[in-house]
This record gives sequence, structure tokens and C-alpha cells, in this order.
Amino acid sequence: MKQYKAAIVGYGGMGRWHKTGICKTERVSITGVYDINPERMKQAQEDGITKAYSSYEDLIGDKEIDIVIVATPNNFHLELACRAMEAGKLVVCEKPVTMTSDELQELMDCAAKTGSKFTIHQNRRADPDYLEMRDAVEKGLLGDVFEIESRVTGSRGIPEGWRQYAVAGGGMMLDWGVHLIDQMVMMMSPKKVTDVYCELYHVNYKECDDGFKMIMHFEQGPSVTIEVGTSHFLSAPRWLVFGDRGALTIPTWDCNGRIVRAKEHEVTWEEEIIYTKAGPTKTMAPRAKDTIEEIELDGDLWKPDFDIFYRNLADFLDGTAELRVKPEEAMRVMKIMEAAFESDRTRSVIKCEI
Amino acid sequence: MKQYKAAIVGYGGMGRWHKTGICKTERVSITGVYDINPERMKQAQEDGITKAYSSYEDLIGDKEIDIVIVATPNNFHLELACRAMEAGKLVVCEKPVTMTSDELQELMDCAAKTGSKFTIHQNRRADPDYLEMRDAVEKGLLGDVFEIESRVTGSRGIPEGWRQYAVAGGGMMLDWGVHLIDQMVMMMSPKKVTDVYCELYHVNYKECDDGFKMIMHFEQGPSVTIEVGTSHFLSAPRWLVFGDRGALTIPTWDCNGRIVRAKEHEVTWEEEIIYTKAGPTKTMAPRAKDTIEEIELDGDLWKPDFDIFYRNLADFLDGTAELRVKPEEAMRVMKIMEAAFESDRTRSVIKCEI
Repeated sequence: MKQYKAAIVGYGGMGRWHKTGICKTERVSITGVYDINPERMKQAQEDGITKAYSSYEDLIGDKEIDIVIVATPNNFHLELACRAMEAGKLVVCEKPVTMTSDELQELMDCAAKTGSKFTIHQNRRADPDYLEMRDAVEKGLLGDVFEIESRVTGSRGIPEGWRQYAVAGGGMMLDWGVHLIDQMVMMMSPKKVTDVYCELYHVNYKECDDGFKMIMHFEQGPSVTIEVGTSHFLSAPRWLVFGDRGALTIPTWDCNGRIVRAKEHEVTWEEEIIYTKAGPTKTMAPRAKDTIEEIELDGDLWKPDFDIFYRNLADFLDGTAELRVKPEEAMRVMKIMEAAFESDRTRSVIKCEI
Repeated sequence: MKQYKAAIVGYGGMGRWHKTGICKTERVSITGVYDINPERMKQAQEDGITKAYSSYEDLIGDKEIDIVIVATPNNFHLELACRAMEAGKLVVCEKPVTMTSDELQELMDCAAKTGSKFTIHQNRRADPDYLEMRDAVEKGLLGDVFEIESRVTGSRGIPEGWRQYAVAGGGMMLDWGVHLIDQMVMMMSPKKVTDVYCELYHVNYKECDDGFKMIMHFEQGPSVTIEVGTSHFLSAPRWLVFGDRGALTIPTWDCNGRIVRAKEHEVTWEEEIIYTKAGPTKTMAPRAKDTIEEIELDGDLWKPDFDIFYRNLADFLDGTAELRVKPEEAMRVMKIMEAAFESDRTRSVIKCEI
């Protein structure tokens, strides 16, 4: 089988992760690199990347290179990706693909004009916790799902560097929102998003959002709450999913979780009252044990497969597969994020059809 | 000290709880009852209520009675409370005080006209989990609080009976929302609510909401999410509170909980990356252990004191205290609930100053 060669522009945390963590298949070798920072060039060499280009022009001019991986700060994606496509390369953009949907449209126009293609490294489509949750929902274990909560929180603030600056496309919506929204869009496809409510957090950073909480609805449901935080000293569960027949929780990325679901379809009401410290309640009393069943979700059954992204690139270049992440999908995510920004700015619900 | 006598109209679950669970002080005796249902009258007698009136007219005409407790379905509160005030009684309305803010205004006008007073049994102001959470926040243990989540969920649907019918003021917003909103309004007072976003759930019931999720903001924060559900097979924590210096969780009504907070004020960023099953992340890596401290919240230190409501009534009748729950406070809660209904109906954010 044919082998393909890739070069990375921007050898920061994510650029390096492409070389050391993601691209495992023998079908693609990351052989070249360009970064404006000499220390990072040195790091790349230590990581086994043999070709160090002295300019981006040299990188895209290298006829041996099939794939260009753009892993710079977000504000450089459009220009660098366009130039690579003009040079006939298949382009992989780190997420978010561009700063705005307008920029993404430019990139799509560039692809149409040059006949080259680009894709986006939406790697979290391969996250095992996400796939595990989807699997349970798609098997119908929860019945008709009406509410999903997807949350990722830490307490260490925005990482030092360009993610703290608006000009570079910083902030947590563009950094993490882009993943969590993409996961939902892919899961619910082809259902469209009908409305977006969002508040951005600025707990410790003024210039960029250091987190956000948003609620969006898909056609005929469900309601999806997404929260990202970098000032959260405790974490809510990574996943909470509620259906009319059961609910699922996956607390952390270790993928261990639990489903509680109704055994019989008929939910009969029992007249018992429970007496809690906070007083009596009928409504919130637990169900009788024999009407529910619990399913443990064993995290060990779910292994990450990040390399799927590069295997797909090779298959695409062979002509045997479509690209796994399509520009049209990224456009939906970009427009949802823009609706979220507008919702925050105007403190209103943005109605849409995205 | 003077002793006061009370009579209950409506001896359902809550009416009975006033007699058997709440009113413990020797200063108030619940001695009379009226209910249209003979079985409930019998139950009241078994519970030690000696005077069984043959009509509501007889009840409010009894000169020995100082306090009338209105614990009927919500749609009867206004008329019954007015008639009792016209008869010179101090009135206790179960929550929600009335069906709408217009009705509440009528009731307030009636109080002004008759010179009688009424209060509302917003008993969950005395819930120990709530007081424990407030205590931590008010001691400043979390720093500046930017986000509160208050949730109560079960999976058994709306209880049988009038709570399933709109005409009687059914649904979970009026049943539980009224408590959880009241708790927040009292905690944040005198800050006003500036906007309300809400979606009502209709998972298993069409006529009335069987739960809801709402987000409201107080002036200068925080953002408050309140969720009530009756189709939730798993429960999120009862309380999650996030401040810029720490976070608190109280998972259940047993009041056991935990605070995680920063030890030093400066939050320094460390360059470490954690490699999770879902890939690497710098942003969501945990803080270094020596920069945080954990405080266990011992639920045993927090005991319910529901009787505080009746002791206050006696003090009020003595002339030595104000009423603990004031109509103006109930009016704020009622208007916030109406904003929530409007938000759901129009799928929009209702801006307000409540």
C-alpha cells in the first residue's frame, strides 16, 4: 500500500501531539516541520522529524509532502491552509478550523478553486467516553433522550500563551466548545440546531472567555447543555444523559459509568412519602428497586483510537474513503459558536436553523 | 406566654404534615380542620385534631381560632385566604401562595382592606442543605460566587391528583420551582433578578410541566441554574456552587458535602499536560495538590428546624416579630415564575428587574 508523507507547521502542544500521540499508522509518516521558534524546531528533531524547513514556502514546496498539518494559533489557519492547498496539498487544520464562518467560507472557496481538499482535526469524535455514551443512546437503553449535559471543567485558568488573546482566537469556546459542540452535531445529525442560549464566563480573564454554559436544542429535541470551565474547583459529571426510560452518567474520562433504567414500561405512582432532612416529599422519593435496573459501564472496554484520523487520510488519498471530518460539518459548528457569542453579547436566545 | 390556635382547610399531604411534622411548638396548637373529603376528616381526627367543622364558614367563624392554614389545591388559595382575612384571621397559605401574580396582588389588596395579614409556608428556607450551602458562601469560603446549580430530581412523574392539572395550578414549576427560586431570592436579596431563561419539560405529561431547567441572573451575578425533574433516573448533585476561590458540592439531602478551594490567592499555571483516555489536555489537568485544600461538610451538624415557622407566627401574634415570609417576597418569586413560563412559551430570554 502506498505510504504518505506529512509536514507540520506550528510545533506547539498540539503539533507535537500529532507526531508523538496521534499518527501511529505506517501509512502516514510525519517527516517535516516548520516553526518560527527555533526551540520547537529542535524539539521536533528530537521527536524524530528529520526535515526541518527554513520557511513555510519550502515546506509547501516540497514535492514529497502529501499532507500539511496546520497547528499554529487560530488566526494563521486560513492563510497557511490556503497556501498549502494552492500548492496541491491535502490540508489538516487544527480546530477551530478558522476564526469565523466567513473565514471558513473563504477556505472552502479556496478548496473549490484549487481542487485541493482540507479537513479538520476534530479528534474528540474519537474520544472513548463520547463513543460509549453514544453507543448507549443509540442502542435505545435510555428511551427517548430529552436532555444531555456535556461538561469539561478545570480550575487552572486558560493556558499561558495565545489562547488568552482574542486576536489569536483564544478563549474556551473556540478551544473546547468547538469539540463538545461538534460531538453533539455529529451525534444528532441530520437534525438541525434550532436555538442557542449561551453565557460566556470571564471569571479570571477579561479578553477571552474562560468558560461558558450554553443550552441548545435540536429539532424535536433533545435539549443539550454544554459547559466548559477553567475556574471550577469541582467537576460535575462529564456526561449526564436523560431519556424517558433511563439515565446515564459517565463521571470522568476513565469511561466508567452507570445507567439506571426502568424495567417495565408502565411507571406506576406509589403513594409513599419519604421524610428527608429537608422535609417530606412524594415527588422526589426513589422508585421501588424492583422497577429499575442498573447497568455498570466498564471503562476498560473503551479504548482510544486517535490514529483513526490518519488512517482515514491515507484511505482518502488512496481514493477509497471520504474524509472523516468535512468542511460542511465544521461550518455548522462554527455557526453554532457564532450564535453562542451573539447570545452572550445580547443576552438573548438566538433562533437558527444550523 | 399566650398560646394560639390554628385550623387547617385541606387535609391532604401537606395539610397533614403541618399537624404531624411541622408545628411542634407549644405556642401554637392545630385544633380544627375542614376538608370536603370525609376520609381526610377522619384522618385528621386520628391525628389528634379535635374540632371537625362542617363547613369552611364554620371554621373561619370560630372565634377561638387565630390562624387559618390554607392547604388546598392552589386554585382555591385566593378565595379561602381572603375569606379568612375578612374574618380577622392570620392566614398561612401553602405555596405557591396563588396561581398568578395578579391573584397575589388581589390577596395583598384584601389584606390591606381587612387589616389582616397573611404569610406563605415557604418551608424550604429552613432546609438544612440550603442553610449549609449559604453558610459556606456567606463565610466567603468560595470567594466571589459566579455560578450556582440547584437541582431536585426524581423519576416517578408528577404525583397523582391535582398537581397534574393546569386548572388547579399543577406542574413542577409551581410545586418545586417556587421553593428553589425562593431560596435563591432570599440568599441574594436585595439583588434583583435581571433575566430569566427557562424550558419546561413535558416528558410524560402534556398538560403540566413535569420539570424544567432555568437560568437566571442576579445583578452583578451570579448565574443560577435551577432544575427540577420527575423523569430523571439519576440525580445531579443537589447543590453545585462555584466561586473564583473554590467550589462546593452537597450531593443529597443528607447534607454531607465537600468544598475544594485554593490555598494561595495567586493561581499559577503549570505547563503539565495530562494524558487521558480522551487525549491530552493542559487546560483540564488538575491543580497541584499543595495549592488546594478540601473541607468536608459534615451533614450531621445540620438539623432541620421546620417548627421555626410556627414559633414565628406566635411571635408575630405577640407583636414581637415580623412575619418570616412576607407577601412582597412571594410576589418576586411569582413574577420570576411567570417570566420563566413566558421564556418557555416564546423560547426567549425575559429581561426583567424583579
